Amino acid sequence: MSAELSPGTERWARAAWTRVAEPDDPTAHDLIGRLSAGEALGAVLRGESWVPEALRLRVRGVDLDAMVRFATRQGWRLLIPGDPDWPTGLDQLAHPPVGLWVHGPADLAEVEAGAAAVVGSRACTAYGLGMAHDLGAGLSSRGYVVVSGAAFGIDRAAHEGCLSVHGTTVAVLAGGLDRPYPAGNADLIAGIARVGALVSEVAPGGAPTKSRFLKRNRLIATMTTGTVVVEAGLRSGSLNTATQAAEHGRPVGAVPGQVTSRASAGCHQAIRDGKAVLVTDVAEVLDLLGRMGLDAAPRPSGPTRPEDELPPQDREVLAVVPVRAASTVNAIAAHAGVTVAQAQASLARLEVVGAVVRVGDSWQQRPRRTGHH
Amino acid sequence: MSAELSPGTERWARAAWTRVAEPDDPTAHDLIGRLSAGEALGAVLRGESWVPEALRLRVRGVDLDAMVRFATRQGWRLLIPGDPDWPTGLDQLAHPPVGLWVHGPADLAEVEAGAAAVVGSRACTAYGLGMAHDLGAGLSSRGYVVVSGAAFGIDRAAHEGCLSVHGTTVAVLAGGLDRPYPAGNADLIAGIARVGALVSEVAPGGAPTKSRFLKRNRLIATMTTGTVVVEAGLRSGSLNTATQAAEHGRPVGAVPGQVTSRASAGCHQAIRDGKAVLVTDVAEVLDLLGRMGLDAAPRPSGPTRPEDELPPQDREVLAVVPVRAASTVNAIAAHAGVTVAQAQASLARLEVVGAVVRVGDSWQQRPRRTGHH
Repeated sequence: MSAELSPGTERWARAAWTRVAEPDDPTAHDLIGRLSAGEALGAVLRGESWVPEALRLRVRGVDLDAMVRFATRQGWRLLIPGDPDWPTGLDQLAHPPVGLWVHGPADLAEVEAGAAAVVGSRACTAYGLGMAHDLGAGLSSRGYVVVSGAAFGIDRAAHEGCLSVHGTTVAVLAGGLDRPYPAGNADLIAGIARVGALVSEVAPGGAPTKSRFLKRNRLIATMTTGTVVVEAGLRSGSLNTATQAAEHGRPVGAVPGQVTSRASAGCHQAIRDGKAVLVTDVAEVLDLLGRMGLDAAPRPSGPTRPEDELPPQDREVLAVVPVRAASTVNAIAAHAGVTVAQAQASLARLEVVGAVVRVGDSWQQRPRRTGHH
Repeated sequence: MSAELSPGTERWARAAWTRVAEPDDPTAHDLIGRLSAGEALGAVLRGESWVPEALRLRVRGVDLDAMVRFATRQGWRLLIPGDPDWPTGLDQLAHPPVGLWVHGPADLAEVEAGAAAVVGSRACTAYGLGMAHDLGAGLSSRGYVVVSGAAFGIDRAAHEGCLSVHGTTVAVLAGGLDRPYPAGNADLIAGIARVGALVSEVAPGGAPTKSRFLKRNRLIATMTTGTVVVEAGLRSGSLNTATQAAEHGRPVGAVPGQVTSRASAGCHQAIRDGKAVLVTDVAEVLDLLGRMGLDAAPRPSGPTRPEDELPPQDREVLAVVPVRAASTVNAIAAHAGVTVAQAQASLARLEVVGAVVRVGDSWQQRPRRTGHH
């Protein structure tokens, strides 16, 4: 694809437009729609009098060719509308991105099969971090791409949960791909680039400004099947993502918490206002996403038990986890005849597939439900 | 009123019926409706052939007169439909109680002005206890009678919260007034009888059986303006109360908690199912109840501040509670020039009127809102 990024092509022109226009710019969208990306760019570069001055000023002294060459050297690619792996959900936006810079091996076509946005506050609690991690891991285990914003707190935990089960996670950045933000998450962002994908509609070099964060949220909201807010204060930006998701017909879930926790106040308000459905676990998020997502696919009709597909060690551990009470890891390890570390690893996997649940510091088998969860 | 409890009166006959018929018995309800309590009782006592055998068997060897004299000696009174202080909400039931035994000074007419059921599980958490106490105190401070079931856990905390602000609280018992249950709450139940009211539709001597608990719940649900479930497991009896309240057109609220807490699972399910509205504080419960309750009454239009009516010590404490941060009790006591115990008492009162909020172990002034909350 990078081969196509040569001057004169429509893709090259769209790459240039990611530098020339701000995200969600109606004027640029209109120009490109009426002409083409290449023709519209030519008019801007020639400074034609009918081109709005704001656009003409934005190309002054800018070496678009150098920008594109820099991106290409980094191994970044530019997706444009119509590409096989273009996330078509974005086309519902009033002004879809002119292109998406992508860094990382993940095939964004997977997003089409089912993607969940897991978002929340930087100011979160240990409870919220645990929930975001579990949802990231659980949704990923069920085949969903987990999309978030690479921020501190909930975003980070959701990405990490997904990475912990070797799932596909996508971080949508507010600035250019060479401007990972926040710097404290540079390690996480680099890790996502290695196995998942970083995505931005802003050209390399672009700073992650406040307005670009808000515009970024519309991408998270529409490239996914639905959005789950794990923890959000009353003014959290993640509520903005949730609102945009709802406005574009996507289901929105919110995880409740103790009412004494400010970090849950935005979730509770969204539930009260009917903007979000209360969700408590992966199964309920799957129900929420199922309207459009993977769960709508036909399922095997025979009785299957999740443990049928488990590795032998996990099955042995599961066999000694009590059903009506809870046991500590130490007791479970002793009964199963494995080390505590092995028991911990098995329990973590069993939790992801929904076979066991944590009760304080102990573990219990998850009550069987009828149906597919 | 006890003077009226003499044989031959309709009230005496209804007192007898509380022993003869089980709560919610359609046959007894039908008989009393077609004849009168006195005539129907006479037919049962005479063993007339058209009286269902089940009823005839229930009066064999029973000294109804001794039961009524015993109740009268205890100072208990029997309310019957049509009495000025009969809770008319009960008349919406398919089979309202034939009478309500009452023990305690509270005027049940207050229930008509506004009553809130605050219910929940015996198996609860410290978080739930705190919430139930705060809601009991807060609703009481706003003029609501707090009705619950005197069970361990949430019920107890709700009653105690109400008692802590010298409010009116009513415990609806599943057995006779001489059969306080659970025994471990005998102190609480005796305390409610001293300042509030114990209520039962079961005659003295009647055991609190499982079916009577379920029947009792319909009284809690319909003698109140609305029901709030604070914590409830998936099979908690308090969900039964909530369902009955909803079926009789009463608003139902549920307090969320951490999804990892089984004690909140029933609340979350009720919210997900649309049976309950998520509520996080007294103001939101008042909004919920307001459709029918006190909040519909006109309010003073001038600007009033809650602290205008506070005792001087509370005003001094409030003055040193920070607005944008939180202080410990010790720091607040030191700044206000009062003892730690005085500061604690003031803070508890200030919390009830909504002037301060707890933040972990510290305190902060509650952000001012516009409007009346």
